[in-house]
Amino acid sequence: MNDSALRFVTEQLASGHSLVEEYITETKELRSRGVPDKLFEAMEYSLCAGGKRLRPILCIAAAKKCGLPERSALPMALGLEMLHTATLIHDDLPCMDNDDMRRGKPSNHALFGETLAVLAGDALLAQALEFPMFHTEGVPAANLLKALGIFTAAVGPSGVCGGQTLDMFKDAEPGCGARRIASLKTGALIRAAVLTGAALAGAGGDIFAACDEYAVHLGAAFQIVDDILDSTSTAEELGKTPGKDVLQDKITYVSQYGVDRARVLAREESAAASAAIRDFFGNDDFLVLLPEFLVHRSN
Amino acid sequence: MNDSALRFVTEQLASGHSLVEEYITETKELRSRGVPDKLFEAMEYSLCAGGKRLRPILCIAAAKKCGLPERSALPMALGLEMLHTATLIHDDLPCMDNDDMRRGKPSNHALFGETLAVLAGDALLAQALEFPMFHTEGVPAANLLKALGIFTAAVGPSGVCGGQTLDMFKDAEPGCGARRIASLKTGALIRAAVLTGAALAGAGGDIFAACDEYAVHLGAAFQIVDDILDSTSTAEELGKTPGKDVLQDKITYVSQYGVDRARVLAREESAAASAAIRDFFGNDDFLVLLPEFLVHRSN
Repeated sequence: MNDSALRFVTEQLASGHSLVEEYITETKELRSRGVPDKLFEAMEYSLCAGGKRLRPILCIAAAKKCGLPERSALPMALGLEMLHTATLIHDDLPCMDNDDMRRGKPSNHALFGETLAVLAGDALLAQALEFPMFHTEGVPAANLLKALGIFTAAVGPSGVCGGQTLDMFKDAEPGCGARRIASLKTGALIRAAVLTGAALAGAGGDIFAACDEYAVHLGAAFQIVDDILDSTSTAEELGKTPGKDVLQDKITYVSQYGVDRARVLAREESAAASAAIRDFFGNDDFLVLLPEFLVHRSN
Repeated sequence: MNDSALRFVTEQLASGHSLVEEYITETKELRSRGVPDKLFEAMEYSLCAGGKRLRPILCIAAAKKCGLPERSALPMALGLEMLHTATLIHDDLPCMDNDDMRRGKPSNHALFGETLAVLAGDALLAQALEFPMFHTEGVPAANLLKALGIFTAAVGPSGVCGGQTLDMFKDAEPGCGARRIASLKTGALIRAAVLTGAALAGAGGDIFAACDEYAVHLGAAFQIVDDILDSTSTAEELGKTPGKDVLQDKITYVSQYGVDRARVLAREESAAASAAIRDFFGNDDFLVLLPEFLVHRSN
């Protein structure tokens, strides 16, 4: 990846990040309406605890590329980030990965207790769907319904919740490998991020199918890179509890294939992702360049 | 309430119950698609662990009364029951009400462990919205979107999740009483059951407003009756862990007003509920007679 492409993607990610952060701030009052203060505080703590905002950025970028103004994609984009946050809160619980630290800060239950952490996760999961349903503007009802369908399907038991089950229980599905786990636990929401954006914009046919293929490969590349970084970093570097065994004997691309083979797989997935949309979006597009950028990160 | 009205409501509840049970059986394969077996087993255990199926029965009855065939309301009705089940699973967790028994059987976490119980609750919450979104037939998109909006708003932090927070933390909202807690924790979903049915059928204007008023008073009556039964029954009679303190120092209508005053309030709420829809639905209607039937139960 050349320097100017690197700089371009970095700038696009930074401006997307700012846009999402501003929208989070702008909608605070709206999101807190009718919500008990104590619950909102716990939800907001984790929603505002940092993060790359990759899912909302993907949604907005796909929507724009398919012809929708970014304002119309923002509520769905925020919904995706709320859902992602909900899964992180529940993943950290003592009965899940039991981690008191997240992104270098106390995890939700470490600060607010388990009771409120379970409720904050539930509440963010529900609000993730409620928010775009009520606050999306300038989108035909049919497009919104299609996007919501993609989103809810990604969240449920055949999506993120199913993936988390496979991640926690090695015996949950006989013969289940890293690819299947990642495709649900991480891949489903990355795919939903791209496809909800495309659906809101009314994309169909070949472009929608190309976005789908792109998103599936991007999700795989993203998870492989994450697994590589987890295996080559200390808990401190990852913002987790110092000394913690981050991998906890889990099935990952690295545990299954080794680091070297995982790097090759990441490059293959990245190339397949870009190839899927290059003809539609061009060589210099943010979404086309992003997969290689992510892989670059793990080298 | 006279004997023939009692018999009529009992029969209607029994036939609604059968319809919902049959639909749960009929959709089992559909609901399990793509779901890890272990997760589905935990979800299904609680979904099929009994219960009055009141929420789906209300949804179907309201939809029919507003002109929609019951088949078209069944997916939403099942979604309401899935959501109710999700809240029961999370409510029983050690970090919530910590109850190993539910309806005379082991609660979800007592049988499957906390990890899977959290995941099964999350998965049912998400599938509750996913299922009606994909399987509702014979309903215009705008009606479905309206019904889904009502449903998600009832689930989120200003609905059921908010109510559960108020129920768990006395300091979550200063001055918060039984009415406010119940209106979110129980009332929001009872209201959503009636209103999603009406919305699916395309009801609007005065009838929709009447259904709303009915549902709010019905939800209050239902919770008051529940509080009275909790205060006058043993844990064993309620299907909870023998010897358990069911009320756990919680704010209820009985703790706030005493049993006698709570009975008066239940009758008032019941009368207000029926009065709201009597002019539209007639004296002999199931929904009109139901509130008095519920109050009758607590005498």
